[in-house]
Amino acid sequence: MRRLCIHTITTKPWTTEECISRYAAAGVGGITFWRYNLEGRNPAVVGKQAREAGLDIVSLCRGGFFPASSAEGRQKAIDDNRRCIEEAQALGAPLIVLVCGAVPGQSLEESRKQIADGIAAVLPDAEAAGVKLGIEPLHPMYADDRSAVNTMRQANDICDALGSPDMLGIAADVYHIWWDPELQHQIEFTAAQKRLFAFHICDWKTPTTDFLNDRGLMGEGCIPIRQISDWVDATGYKGPREVEIFSHRYWAMDQDEYLGKITESYRQLYV
Amino acid sequence: MRRLCIHTITTKPWTTEECISRYAAAGVGGITFWRYNLEGRNPAVVGKQAREAGLDIVSLCRGGFFPASSAEGRQKAIDDNRRCIEEAQALGAPLIVLVCGAVPGQSLEESRKQIADGIAAVLPDAEAAGVKLGIEPLHPMYADDRSAVNTMRQANDICDALGSPDMLGIAADVYHIWWDPELQHQIEFTAAQKRLFAFHICDWKTPTTDFLNDRGLMGEGCIPIRQISDWVDATGYKGPREVEIFSHRYWAMDQDEYLGKITESYRQLYV
Repeated sequence: MRRLCIHTITTKPWTTEECISRYAAAGVGGITFWRYNLEGRNPAVVGKQAREAGLDIVSLCRGGFFPASSAEGRQKAIDDNRRCIEEAQALGAPLIVLVCGAVPGQSLEESRKQIADGIAAVLPDAEAAGVKLGIEPLHPMYADDRSAVNTMRQANDICDALGSPDMLGIAADVYHIWWDPELQHQIEFTAAQKRLFAFHICDWKTPTTDFLNDRGLMGEGCIPIRQISDWVDATGYKGPREVEIFSHRYWAMDQDEYLGKITESYRQLYV
Repeated sequence: MRRLCIHTITTKPWTTEECISRYAAAGVGGITFWRYNLEGRNPAVVGKQAREAGLDIVSLCRGGFFPASSAEGRQKAIDDNRRCIEEAQALGAPLIVLVCGAVPGQSLEESRKQIADGIAAVLPDAEAAGVKLGIEPLHPMYADDRSAVNTMRQANDICDALGSPDMLGIAADVYHIWWDPELQHQIEFTAAQKRLFAFHICDWKTPTTDFLNDRGLMGEGCIPIRQISDWVDATGYKGPREVEIFSHRYWAMDQDEYLGKITESYRQLYV
């Protein structure tokens, strides 16, 4: 259970404080905050609350969204990522997850170039703050407007192109990459490059009825989560398994009951 | 306009006979029938009607769906593909498009093995009938229950594994493959292997609101259709460009008006 981490957006109806207290009470080991959790709050205080409750702060979601059709838009994104790095440092989060971004109608090649440029621009800030950046490859169904980085191979290519800096790595989420025929190899390669920074879990339902908010709880869908998780662990990864579920259906239910379902499905998978 | 082919499902509200007469009247060069078009009809008669109207019969959609959890289910699929080959031969369609299939919860590797086995089982029938089989890689968002073949590379791997038979190739649909960073290379490789059998077009809307039936008309979305089409033509491909659009929105409108939009968007793209 110590390796179970939950993303606050999973229980979106809860306040920041409710997430901290309920996760801790349920024996969850870690918490990944989303930036909306910090709105109107002092990140350092939120971080202290979480640590005092016994939770490891795993990461801050999310930076990225670097591509834009204008130089002004790209600069705005860089500025926002710098703020995100400051927030992560104050919070005590060792990692920021990057949803890299894409602009509909702009070529994916150009978006990837802008992503690499954006990351290069903020890397010195991340290094100075001691905050790592994890590129999260997103499922190809998000290539239009959310991310032009859709496979672990592409994420690795960006890390390589930027000289493989220590603070830059990959956040692997089974929802986005489970279908990839290269998956096992890419997990091994990523870990060998010491850049497997995070591992997210949830499930893919059949049918899925919403492009964003119909993810399933582990065990409800077709993703071979345990197999992928075993590949990850076989590389020596000992980090958290982060539950990140966007779901209108689950957000509508009693969140305490839902948290019980999360810990139960995690136990069935791993214990 | 001679290279414009339309899939009958694009104008689903129309009967088989309406599709033939309206496409021909609009100056469309080719038609791809869906199997529902043949229900209660003699395929040979339908084929004769289409040819007499001046339409090239491009392909029959669709065969495939080979994986199943039982041997009985897989045999049923093979039998159905044999019937599909008979229908295509009677119709005078030189090609069947294969949506290969997948079983939720069964590993993609196992499904791909069953797909290869299923194709191998029906290939002799296809060869005897003079009907080609085109594997259509489907977007990774359909990997759960529609196809375990999600990239052109995987489709090529299956062709290679089966000894690269002349009658087996690939149907490339921009909707499924536009995001693939290997796309240009895979198109060139496929054509060099003489197995680029078909080219389908439509567009990817932002946002897309339905996993199946919210495809866009060419120009409505983010797919660089003309660029991909130019890559295809640069290989020496001179075949049809097949418009295949599943859309609740377009099916709800006057189909004559819609056909006008299709030919207009095709002209804007190519003429």
